[in-house]
Amino acid sequence: MISKIVSKEEAAESIQDGMVIGTSGGDASAFPKAFFSALAKRADKGERFQIQLLTSGPIAEEIDGTLTQKGLISRRLGQQSSTILRKAVNQRKVIFIDLPSGMFPMKVREGRFGRLDVAVLEAMAITEDGFIVPSTAVLDGPSHVQVAEKIIIELNYAYPPEMEGIHDIYIPEPHPYRKPIPLIHVMDRIGLPYIIVDPEKIIAIIESDQIYSGENSIVMDKESLQVGRHVINFLQKEVEKGSFTKALLPLELGLGNMAEAIMHELLQSDLGPLEIYTAVIGDGILDLMDAGKVRGMSASGLYFSTKGFERFWRDLKKYKDLILLRPVEIADCSEVILRLGVIAINGALEVDIYGHVNSSHIQGSQVITGIGGSVEFAQNSLLSIFILPSSRNDGKISSIVPMATHVDHTEHAVDVIATEQGVADLRGLDPIERASQIIEKCAHPDFRTYLRGYLKQAKKENFGHEPHILREAFSLHLNLIEKGTMKG
Amino acid sequence: MISKIVSKEEAAESIQDGMVIGTSGGDASAFPKAFFSALAKRADKGERFQIQLLTSGPIAEEIDGTLTQKGLISRRLGQQSSTILRKAVNQRKVIFIDLPSGMFPMKVREGRFGRLDVAVLEAMAITEDGFIVPSTAVLDGPSHVQVAEKIIIELNYAYPPEMEGIHDIYIPEPHPYRKPIPLIHVMDRIGLPYIIVDPEKIIAIIESDQIYSGENSIVMDKESLQVGRHVINFLQKEVEKGSFTKALLPLELGLGNMAEAIMHELLQSDLGPLEIYTAVIGDGILDLMDAGKVRGMSASGLYFSTKGFERFWRDLKKYKDLILLRPVEIADCSEVILRLGVIAINGALEVDIYGHVNSSHIQGSQVITGIGGSVEFAQNSLLSIFILPSSRNDGKISSIVPMATHVDHTEHAVDVIATEQGVADLRGLDPIERASQIIEKCAHPDFRTYLRGYLKQAKKENFGHEPHILREAFSLHLNLIEKGTMKG
Repeated sequence: MISKIVSKEEAAESIQDGMVIGTSGGDASAFPKAFFSALAKRADKGERFQIQLLTSGPIAEEIDGTLTQKGLISRRLGQQSSTILRKAVNQRKVIFIDLPSGMFPMKVREGRFGRLDVAVLEAMAITEDGFIVPSTAVLDGPSHVQVAEKIIIELNYAYPPEMEGIHDIYIPEPHPYRKPIPLIHVMDRIGLPYIIVDPEKIIAIIESDQIYSGENSIVMDKESLQVGRHVINFLQKEVEKGSFTKALLPLELGLGNMAEAIMHELLQSDLGPLEIYTAVIGDGILDLMDAGKVRGMSASGLYFSTKGFERFWRDLKKYKDLILLRPVEIADCSEVILRLGVIAINGALEVDIYGHVNSSHIQGSQVITGIGGSVEFAQNSLLSIFILPSSRNDGKISSIVPMATHVDHTEHAVDVIATEQGVADLRGLDPIERASQIIEKCAHPDFRTYLRGYLKQAKKENFGHEPHILREAFSLHLNLIEKGTMKG
Repeated sequence: MISKIVSKEEAAESIQDGMVIGTSGGDASAFPKAFFSALAKRADKGERFQIQLLTSGPIAEEIDGTLTQKGLISRRLGQQSSTILRKAVNQRKVIFIDLPSGMFPMKVREGRFGRLDVAVLEAMAITEDGFIVPSTAVLDGPSHVQVAEKIIIELNYAYPPEMEGIHDIYIPEPHPYRKPIPLIHVMDRIGLPYIIVDPEKIIAIIESDQIYSGENSIVMDKESLQVGRHVINFLQKEVEKGSFTKALLPLELGLGNMAEAIMHELLQSDLGPLEIYTAVIGDGILDLMDAGKVRGMSASGLYFSTKGFERFWRDLKKYKDLILLRPVEIADCSEVILRLGVIAINGALEVDIYGHVNSSHIQGSQVITGIGGSVEFAQNSLLSIFILPSSRNDGKISSIVPMATHVDHTEHAVDVIATEQGVADLRGLDPIERASQIIEKCAHPDFRTYLRGYLKQAKKENFGHEPHILREAFSLHLNLIEKGTMKG
């Protein structure tokens, strides 16, 4: 293996125009930084080439953004969170294909996106047999290396060796030989603590020693905390009704202000000790673990801030006992989510009066990040909760609208909606009943009159089980385009 | 058990106003006809009462329609196919809740729709221990009896006793004790050949001796056969590419002209011998079985015509070896569909240029049947194909539209679209690429110019990854309302 160690520049030279590259890692965690920075430098020297880049985790601005600026990405598959890449995608300068994360690796293996030329992964260690120990995120790396023609490893010495063993790598068999995924409880170890690769495929190993991370940009404002409180109150009432115990059922949480606010409110509550079954998680989980409120957590990536990672390294032994890091294909797997009876909490961009959720496209057109694992969770969870603020842009935009301009989650995958205004429990309700709940409990008061009027008029004009006035359905959105506000 | 035999009138007397009744059976197959006809007669005598009726299979007009006409249904959950009920639902005289069939039984057990007072099931036999052998459909019966307070059995002597053993009844454990569903191959027997019930709960057994069925209303017109041919050609090309062997992967098919046309074309093709993993199936499967083209079929209900059932009884021994009838929760289960790598073929009402599918609501408002198991199949299959005619109503309505007026399946759950015009293979494409494929390959030529114009204008006006012109998105639909046609 030592003979394969090369400089990052040398490794980057192996990439040719038109190649399909699969990588892994997310945001500020576990992505092969040295390799991609060296790749970007080739453009600075005047070289012209483009790659197709596949990765389900939204990787950091410094990769997606830099490569985009230099014109190096022709096609990007998976989620993205880079402002620069997003702009290019929405200007259609970069082709972007958004995919449910749980199914994405399987579809890559199946060859749906053509041949995968190179897989580039960060590793905290390589075993004597040439197997790879990933770092703070697993995501689609273990799948990519199965089908990639060649593998480049960025070996990062900065991770404490004690982290080894935190990973649980399992990739389902190909069809028609696929077996049940043997995961019955969140903390069941079903795989190996490293990724098996064909050592012959490893063409380069780059050495690196920096843990990148980012500032904690979370601001738990009043609104987020109110949403958090509403969700926790709702769960507490479910406990009182006997739906589940105080330990709840395995919980899915995402990233961002509202997910952090929910963790903050969980900390104050008498709920727990919890099991977490989620794709990625932020700093808040450390508080919950410190408070003894977590029995175990399965995730595909730790997306901590610099301070969060400092805490994590400091008490690694404690945290490691509570965490298993798995491939995104398992973290977001329909089969496992259905079996565990997950309580799924996902963010939304807008929700319509009948409960359809848009979580990806502004005005139905401009993509934000992508849908990630939210589809698998919303469809297969025992309880599917969506959270969002009732309004945005200083109250100019209502998040509750007559008809969603893009649908990522249909009415059938949405049980509960929470905004800072309140909670709409949609279970067992028909469309008209749902509409009343959503308008009265979740919409911002400034828009309730309009929404009530739309519902009333739709019922009057249009025979139908889920009545819509098609000429009016997007009036709020058109008002926003014309007047800069949905009001009036 | 003999002591529990009562007249159908007596059994019907046990139903009180406001009760929640769960039943099972579908269309013209395996529904408790005698019981519901006796229940309807109570209304003829001037009695006033209403029930809530839960069943995932669309039961026959003679139940859903008759009960609706007599004002006996306040709330109906699951799919429906009755013209009379549908009208009442769309006039909002009966509350209707449509639900994905695979998740529906679990949600009923969970108590989401309140207490289930009575389960009413047809049986072809009752064992000595009081266990129930269902007849030609299983659907949600085995789940209903688990949670119902009381059970009424309609024992139908008309079925040949040799059918016993065709059933494979397995209901997953409740959360958090749920285990992997041990189904690895389509024909794996994972359960029991009868439904276990608590004999104490059985309050009445009604005797019956008529097998109801219906005429085969299937008309395989030129258009359906063209769709069928396109789908089979597409699958044959996939075989040539090495995606799977001639035996394909387990196939899901629905009901109706196009599903029958696909079976007809399969018969002519060199594909097979096939495995079928589907919820319900029509007469065409018998031709495929007769031709030795089926290795095995898992279904939840046989929805044959009278002639189809006559064939089925005549060669029961042969067919029985090839069929397992399972609860709808297994037939439509995400976990199993994902594991088997199903090729799912589902019908659609309209499809938009970016690949979102409306399979349930005309003009976004009026529900047709419901979504059944299509959600679980589209989301979790290895290959998700949607079929529809490119136009309807003598060419006045385009099935390909700029934006779907209701979304049941998002762009991420749709791999292939086939109309009589051709096949759009959307795998690995971004929204703009998908739009071109759908317009050029699937849309009716009469509407292509309009759709191309919409796409061109949307790209021009609106920065966005999936550009829409919200003020124009439903122009075709509005034209239809105003002028009776989408043309012009």
